[in-house]
Amino acid sequence: MESNPSFLTDTELAPELYPEVVEKLCSIYQKKVYPVESTYRFDEFHAPFLRECDFRAKPMVLLLGQYSVGKTSFIKFLLGRDFPGMMIGPNPTTDRFVAIMHGDDDRVIPGNAVAVDDDKPFHALNRFGASFLGKFEASECSAPVLEYTTFIDTPGVLSGEKQRIGRSYDFVSAVTWFSERCDMILLLFDAHKLDISDEFKRCIEALKGQDDKIRVVLNKADIVSSQELMRVYGALMWSLGKVVPTPEAMRVYISSFWDKPYKNEEYLNLFEAERRDLLGDLKSLPRMSAVRKINELVKRARLVKVHAFILSHLRAKMPALWGKQSKQDELTHNLLEEFREIKKKYRLPVGDFPDIDRFKEHLKQHDFTTFPKLDMKLISKIDEVLSVDIPQLMKEVSPTPQIVE
Amino acid sequence: MESNPSFLTDTELAPELYPEVVEKLCSIYQKKVYPVESTYRFDEFHAPFLRECDFRAKPMVLLLGQYSVGKTSFIKFLLGRDFPGMMIGPNPTTDRFVAIMHGDDDRVIPGNAVAVDDDKPFHALNRFGASFLGKFEASECSAPVLEYTTFIDTPGVLSGEKQRIGRSYDFVSAVTWFSERCDMILLLFDAHKLDISDEFKRCIEALKGQDDKIRVVLNKADIVSSQELMRVYGALMWSLGKVVPTPEAMRVYISSFWDKPYKNEEYLNLFEAERRDLLGDLKSLPRMSAVRKINELVKRARLVKVHAFILSHLRAKMPALWGKQSKQDELTHNLLEEFREIKKKYRLPVGDFPDIDRFKEHLKQHDFTTFPKLDMKLISKIDEVLSVDIPQLMKEVSPTPQIVE
Ligand SMILES: Nc1ncnc2c1ncn2[C@@H]1O[C@H](COP(=O)(O)OP(=O)(O)OP(=O)(O)O)[C@@H](O)[C@H]1O
Ligand SMILES: Nc1ncnc2c1ncn2[C@@H]1O[C@H](COP(=O)(O)OP(=O)(O)OP(=O)(O)O)[C@@H](O)[C@H]1O
Ligand SMILES: [Mg+2]
Ligand SMILES: [Mg+2]
Repeated sequence: MESNPSFLTDTELAPELYPEVVEKLCSIYQKKVYPVESTYRFDEFHAPFLRECDFRAKPMVLLLGQYSVGKTSFIKFLLGRDFPGMMIGPNPTTDRFVAIMHGDDDRVIPGNAVAVDDDKPFHALNRFGASFLGKFEASECSAPVLEYTTFIDTPGVLSGEKQRIGRSYDFVSAVTWFSERCDMILLLFDAHKLDISDEFKRCIEALKGQDDKIRVVLNKADIVSSQELMRVYGALMWSLGKVVPTPEAMRVYISSFWDKPYKNEEYLNLFEAERRDLLGDLKSLPRMSAVRKINELVKRARLVKVHAFILSHLRAKMPALWGKQSKQDELTHNLLEEFREIKKKYRLPVGDFPDIDRFKEHLKQHDFTTFPKLDMKLISKIDEVLSVDIPQLMKEVSPTPQIVE
Repeated sequence: MESNPSFLTDTELAPELYPEVVEKLCSIYQKKVYPVESTYRFDEFHAPFLRECDFRAKPMVLLLGQYSVGKTSFIKFLLGRDFPGMMIGPNPTTDRFVAIMHGDDDRVIPGNAVAVDDDKPFHALNRFGASFLGKFEASECSAPVLEYTTFIDTPGVLSGEKQRIGRSYDFVSAVTWFSERCDMILLLFDAHKLDISDEFKRCIEALKGQDDKIRVVLNKADIVSSQELMRVYGALMWSLGKVVPTPEAMRVYISSFWDKPYKNEEYLNLFEAERRDLLGDLKSLPRMSAVRKINELVKRARLVKVHAFILSHLRAKMPALWGKQSKQDELTHNLLEEFREIKKKYRLPVGDFPDIDRFKEHLKQHDFTTFPKLDMKLISKIDEVLSVDIPQLMKEVSPTPQIVE
């Protein structure tokens, strides 16, 4: 009955690779992509410039579930210790989003402070407003697993009415934001009291597109009889299959994840094997996270390139003297034609072009004559990123050929 | 490791009740319902008259599954013996529908002979034609469980192409026919080789409306590892939940159902408990079947009553001398109006009326002046059935108040 997961001291968990790779990625961005972004005002059209902390952020695991399924206990179990501000109890206890992160000293940092901290990847949470930030905090402490992972504990999902009355912010939006930024989403269920409220179903549906990150945990599996466990597990899969559209069943880890001994030892082998598998899955996070970040930068770099061509193309079409406004209107109106011309001229894939209606909206706020001219030398840096730097980095992350995607 | 299910010698399985109840039901039909049916030519509009064997037919269990999941072995296990014509093997073996029924001597009766046998409830199979009857047979032998149950073994479902090429009759229609007449439908799956082909999905979808009869068997559960069993079971529920629209998961029996010892004994307790539950479920069949037959007769009697009113009403509206054809056309055209009048006059529930378009079709082939006149005395027998005989019989079947529906 091991209650301390073996991997906590396992050196495999510490692939020095991860910090190295993200440093390199960050430097590629800063030296070759950012200059193009800033010249062509990418942030005014698409997304804020990336900051160092966006790269350095550790792989993130989001925990979701009805209240009392054992989310907080699960994190305590992985840490092998209590974390600052931790509360565990039979009633709804966790009442906020908590980022459990590595820190040399134990401390709790309020949401408002976290969101302005340049070293933490939570700036964007400002947009959820003060009432959300009042329900968000970081809990810093030191534990082996935190060197390579940040956990996001969440308030348990309540049934519809209670949920809405109790909360001053949009729970599902907050969950969606975290789910897009994290590398693994753990959906926890309680074998003793299976409950999938409509509210939680909406939550799961909001994770659409993130399906490959989702893992399911059927927790407290040791406190029901073997037949009962089968019924509960079957009912869980039956219901999840109806909510999640993928034909392949999600991976479910059936065990008990806390630091107490198993109650019912009939399935001891299963429970232990499932624990091992889940811990193994967590160990692969740094690599998965690195690959995800690389892919995101690739997607961004392609968009940056197309963006630079679009702006310089529009600029080039503007008249030198009069008729500026009408020409600008005409170009906007015929934007699809202009896109086609750019695509053909520079041989760009159509999939790299931005959404045309959204782009038109942005264009309205600009004077095309202020757009920078075509700077081929600058833009060619992006090609270098895509054809040399990134493939090189991918090799470092996935040294064995079969893992290279 | 008991390999012979204990209930085979269990007297509980033999509720003398069942034959008694169906005899009474048969006599109610013959004395009070049939006279109305034959006077008002019910068979020409709705369904053939019922025969004694329709009542006396034993509770029926239909087995369905991909090939080689162990359907035939399952029946052998329940019988505690081989049955005539039985074939078991790793390749697709059973190539026909087989009704395994009680008989003092061991013998196989070809489909054509079964379908004309007045003692067997398979007359209606004639409508599937000779090529189906060539792939149907009855296997008679003596075994305790057969005193109270008939099993329908079926050819394993193959993948789409093979299925269609190999079969000269419509498999799904045949399955649908049996599913409507049986009391339990067992869907068997092989834990070792889970396969739910599109063909089998179509089969399951065709069982719509019979959901409450369906039970699932995850067979050969002892020849995979405990973790593998969980994955397979989860995948099964995930897929079934997508095919079957009910929110509640179907009951699945996870075990191995044949006469050999379990291979993997890790889940011994579960496997044994699941076997016991399934056998217990089979034991409740005679009562369930009796209740189902009573309900069906109630539905039929209500339809018969309405039918008698409709025909006598149309007859009464016909002119004595001329204009018969045009009056008949007018009545048919305004049938909805006539239905409303009948409904109001005799205070009949709208739900008891037949489908109007189908009824119009039938009317075309009749001369309304040949319809019998209203015979209130005759029809009042039906009310007697509904208000006295059936409630009395229901009490006998469900003596405890909480079981009465
Ligand atoms: N693996 C487990 N087996 C049995 N009981 C557990 C397990 N994990 C936690 N519990 C118990 O369940 C209750 C809820 O635990 P916990 O507070 O960790 O859940 P939670 O999901 O974080 O709840 P909330 O959503 O309210 O924050 C506590 O009483 C805890 O002791
Ligand atoms: N419970 C069981 N555990 C392991 N093997 C089994 C079990 N039941 C049957 N088998 C084996 O599986 C194979 C198929 O068995 P069987 O012929 O009963 O299946 P079936 O579903 O009737 O196949 P078909 O659809 O082709 O008629 C045989 O080799 C049989 O010995
Ligand atoms: Mg909690
Ligand atoms: Mg067979």
